[in-house]
Amino acid sequence: MSTICKNIKVIDNELYFNNFKVTDLAKKYGTPLYLMDENRIRENINIYKSALKNYFGDSAMMLYASKACSFKYIYKIMQEENVGIDLVSSGELYTAKKTGFDLSKAYFHSNNKTDFDISYGIENNVGYFVADNIEEVNVIERECAKLDKVQKILLRLTPGIDTHTYEADQTGKIDSKFGTAIETGQALSLVGDVLKLPHIKLMGFHCHVGSQVFEEDVYERTSEIMLGFFSKVKDVYGFDTLEYDIGGGLGVRYVESDSVLNIDKKLKELSDYIKSKCKELNIIVPAFRMEPGRSIVADAGMTIYTVGTIKKIPGYKNYVSIDGGMADNPRFALYGANYTCMVANKMNEPLDFKADLVGRCCESGDIIQKDVMFPSSVKRYDIVAVATTGAYNYSMASNYNRLPRPAVVMLKDDKDFIVVKAETFENLIQNDV
Amino acid sequence: MSTICKNIKVIDNELYFNNFKVTDLAKKYGTPLYLMDENRIRENINIYKSALKNYFGDSAMMLYASKACSFKYIYKIMQEENVGIDLVSSGELYTAKKTGFDLSKAYFHSNNKTDFDISYGIENNVGYFVADNIEEVNVIERECAKLDKVQKILLRLTPGIDTHTYEADQTGKIDSKFGTAIETGQALSLVGDVLKLPHIKLMGFHCHVGSQVFEEDVYERTSEIMLGFFSKVKDVYGFDTLEYDIGGGLGVRYVESDSVLNIDKKLKELSDYIKSKCKELNIIVPAFRMEPGRSIVADAGMTIYTVGTIKKIPGYKNYVSIDGGMADNPRFALYGANYTCMVANKMNEPLDFKADLVGRCCESGDIIQKDVMFPSSVKRYDIVAVATTGAYNYSMASNYNRLPRPAVVMLKDDKDFIVVKAETFENLIQNDV
Repeated sequence: MSTICKNIKVIDNELYFNNFKVTDLAKKYGTPLYLMDENRIRENINIYKSALKNYFGDSAMMLYASKACSFKYIYKIMQEENVGIDLVSSGELYTAKKTGFDLSKAYFHSNNKTDFDISYGIENNVGYFVADNIEEVNVIERECAKLDKVQKILLRLTPGIDTHTYEADQTGKIDSKFGTAIETGQALSLVGDVLKLPHIKLMGFHCHVGSQVFEEDVYERTSEIMLGFFSKVKDVYGFDTLEYDIGGGLGVRYVESDSVLNIDKKLKELSDYIKSKCKELNIIVPAFRMEPGRSIVADAGMTIYTVGTIKKIPGYKNYVSIDGGMADNPRFALYGANYTCMVANKMNEPLDFKADLVGRCCESGDIIQKDVMFPSSVKRYDIVAVATTGAYNYSMASNYNRLPRPAVVMLKDDKDFIVVKAETFENLIQNDV
Repeated sequence: MSTICKNIKVIDNELYFNNFKVTDLAKKYGTPLYLMDENRIRENINIYKSALKNYFGDSAMMLYASKACSFKYIYKIMQEENVGIDLVSSGELYTAKKTGFDLSKAYFHSNNKTDFDISYGIENNVGYFVADNIEEVNVIERECAKLDKVQKILLRLTPGIDTHTYEADQTGKIDSKFGTAIETGQALSLVGDVLKLPHIKLMGFHCHVGSQVFEEDVYERTSEIMLGFFSKVKDVYGFDTLEYDIGGGLGVRYVESDSVLNIDKKLKELSDYIKSKCKELNIIVPAFRMEPGRSIVADAGMTIYTVGTIKKIPGYKNYVSIDGGMADNPRFALYGANYTCMVANKMNEPLDFKADLVGRCCESGDIIQKDVMFPSSVKRYDIVAVATTGAYNYSMASNYNRLPRPAVVMLKDDKDFIVVKAETFENLIQNDV
């Protein structure tokens, strides 16, 4: 049986997720259903927290990248764990605020903050804007001037690193919609402009080279460029970089063939590199920020579905269809993403039937995963579990085909409880006139 | 200026959509905003209605494929135009029902109807199920038996036609998740099984070879196979096919280089072909059904956005960013779809600045269109219009990055009015516990 997640096991042919029998949860809550393992979320957070504390010291902070999975309860966990958050929209800010999250520990991102976003962030005393470019900086300055307020910011830079991940996940390249490029000289000139502004306090710099990073030295190569830039701004402007935010992106295992990452070891190596490089460059070691999202919630999630039609087309192909699909998980349709799929009530049976696992949407591209090995006994009313769906599934879900979005059920110790209620048909038409 | 839509024009540097000045609508309702032209929707419907009546006779009926764009007001239009609808989920059925749509003219599709869908359809007296396979037929029979009711159905077949469109849009191939294959003999055997069931009245057959069909003879090639099959079921079972539903899929122009289709001419040719083929095969001419969705609503839609950051990376690339993106229009991210994009307030300026039109989502793949030619004066607060977004934009929209979905404003004659209200932040968290 799959070892893709630490929090699954099999007893008597049945799949258990964080010690809950999956078919029992399907019966209790119905399908499709998002499951999340709160214990796992907290364990993942603590891997980062303790590595950051051990290797980067007390000034370091983890910022949870909300876009991976954003709903009220997630921010309660982050508040309790005393970590910061990375927000990308006023909607995420609103959600965090409604849980009482301390927004002084919030970093407001986005390649294109609207004037509303900026005003809304300032009004809600967001700790930092991660300003993408001069236009945003100018709007922040203008709005803060009106209120006679000083706003802390980081500047987002593009170091020009290619991470060899999915194309859509490469965000640190020079030709990126994100940030301001170091190589072109635009970043250095931007710093000069920003330092003149009276209502902006520049604290440091941010970059994000992509998600699903597995390569050994990506963060070191990135830091070499970033720290070199910090040294340059020290020389040119006498500016000490107080914060260095390296973004997110450590890889998550979706299938057995994905590498196993040792986050603790990676952060220790990175810390050693940064400290020695700062010494070499004769600059202060900035407070370190890191923004994991996927690696906090992905393997804490599992989606469960009820099997519908099994289609066998002799000489061609087989299909196992489920009562969800690209509306609740568009990642195969978008990226051809890999997933580990299991029949939760037939875990000990031999996997001798190859089929595509497809959704119920009226679209050929509505596939969860191609060429999955199922037990040949798979049939209508079986329960299929798709592992590692905690990130970019609920957060990307749509109502395509007018399908209501499933509930999110949190599993914590021996308790299971709804943290996001399933949408109702009434919800679907609530804004229809 | 672009001639992509019949319902746009330019006066004094400004874009007009169905005679409304686009920048006025942006000011009145805010951005991002979906616009829909009700006059155009009704004109598109009437192209099909009159061609169907003229060439296929009074028994023919157009079924609007709801999944292209589904909200209450759309079904009011369909009811007034006296056409049928194609539904793919209970959520679409619920939406149509809430407008008072006559569900006897509804055809319930989907490759994987759940037991709930089937019960819900029967309970609401849906006219037809388009049954995908034997498992569904068996559930319909079981549920109808309980109520001592007879349900009309069509059977969805896969004729094995490749339409050379986007891969995700090819649904008539043999190795499809949809329907039952003719070539493998499975369809013929299915008919025999279905004809024995006491609570099911088989009316005929459905197929759908894909969307964005431009090729000359796709529907004729499809009909050759389908009518051959009808002749075979007549021979084997003595069954007269009373209805032939050829699905949807006539192509829509997104960019200037897309072909212009003459729907009237295409339907005349198809009718001639079907009549002559039926005569040749000595079978009755079945009542004809067609399911346009995209070609009813696509060019009746336009999305408008406010420009944010303009990013120029010398030697690399340029970006124009807007206050929406893949959350309201995921079609470039999903399919690399083409769109015609314009600066609504600078329509007469030379297009001398090449840039990617990108969204505000925190993802590199959040692109509306690559390599768009803009006027070089494009700047923050300009209004960008993306044409032909009436299909598969609102219906596929998500809350990714916790962005509220935009309002839909209908334009009819000289009236503009909201048909779907914009989501609020409160909406976003309404199901969060």
